[in-house]
Amino acid sequence: MNTVLDELIQSLSRLPGIGKKSAARIAYHLLETDQEFNTRFAKLIHNLQKSIIRCSICGSFTQKDEDPCQICISPNRDRFSICVVEHPQDVLTLENTGAYNGLFQVLGGVISPLDGIGPEELNLGKLVSRIKEEGINEVIVATNPTEEGDTTALYISHLVKELGIRVTRLASGIPVGGDLEYSDRITIARSLRGRTALE
Amino acid sequence: MNTVLDELIQSLSRLPGIGKKSAARIAYHLLETDQEFNTRFAKLIHNLQKSIIRCSICGSFTQKDEDPCQICISPNRDRFSICVVEHPQDVLTLENTGAYNGLFQVLGGVISPLDGIGPEELNLGKLVSRIKEEGINEVIVATNPTEEGDTTALYISHLVKELGIRVTRLASGIPVGGDLEYSDRITIARSLRGRTALE
Repeated sequence: MNTVLDELIQSLSRLPGIGKKSAARIAYHLLETDQEFNTRFAKLIHNLQKSIIRCSICGSFTQKDEDPCQICISPNRDRFSICVVEHPQDVLTLENTGAYNGLFQVLGGVISPLDGIGPEELNLGKLVSRIKEEGINEVIVATNPTEEGDTTALYISHLVKELGIRVTRLASGIPVGGDLEYSDRITIARSLRGRTALE
Repeated sequence: MNTVLDELIQSLSRLPGIGKKSAARIAYHLLETDQEFNTRFAKLIHNLQKSIIRCSICGSFTQKDEDPCQICISPNRDRFSICVVEHPQDVLTLENTGAYNGLFQVLGGVISPLDGIGPEELNLGKLVSRIKEEGINEVIVATNPTEEGDTTALYISHLVKELGIRVTRLASGIPVGGDLEYSDRITIARSLRGRTALE
């Protein structure tokens, strides 16, 4: 009917998690919101990839004029532990918990032979050289508890242990607020294996 | 951490139906998609309100260079019935069903004394003049089955009947695929009152 509106709805529905109905709802919202918001919003999208680069140390996202990133250069962080994550967005997720104050290393993926991704495709060389040069004393592997994430964690574990450094893995088990009854077998089995002592 | 990324996430989470997590997911998607998409997408958003205007006849959205809108000028449509809807987006919703081939009139809202919206705030004068001038023989009221929508439908019904024109209302009842057990009392009561004869 309206090609401009249709095209916008189509573009919106290409975004992750947005179906055709949500896309239409958002398009109509944008049509009736203030033009100032749209101008600013459009500018942000247009300039996004120019403004955000990868940190040359950890591989996380950072602003164009801030390389190394704020985390990598911060004097207020624990500079002796590195948390290894799959993707840059995992850094944000962990930062939002407020429970970790060390450094990060982004792998850029996981070992996945079916997709042709071997260890040499990941930023593992960088991890090893940082461990050696920066005097790291703990590597926390925070890859996802999937088959590929577990394989990658195991690989990193061998790599790091050779250097004589402590390597740990995020606990995997029943989520807080979860219910045994609704948890899958593998998760329950893993929560059993990973059980912790009650003091 | 990254102000540009943060600002984009914040803008995205201002859109209807998008929470903080979805916003972050979309932002990271945009960061890694092709720049061509972002350029086009940003342009669509920036130019949206300049490209889309209200049709001077039905009040629905139309492209800047197409007033009256394609529906209002189409020779292939039933030009004797008008479907009255609350908002321009309702036109798209009805069009997508493929079940209606007549004309539309957008009210721009519903009668809602609490919000200070009386009949004179809606495009009712336009509706009456179109009925008189265009030889309409049926008005289908498609306001939502809410209290305000029902009040508005009743008001329109009086208005249109005075002109000697048939006025109908979209059926309201249990949705197709729905379940009596999970339907609310008012919906079931209404589906009873509106029951239709089985041939």
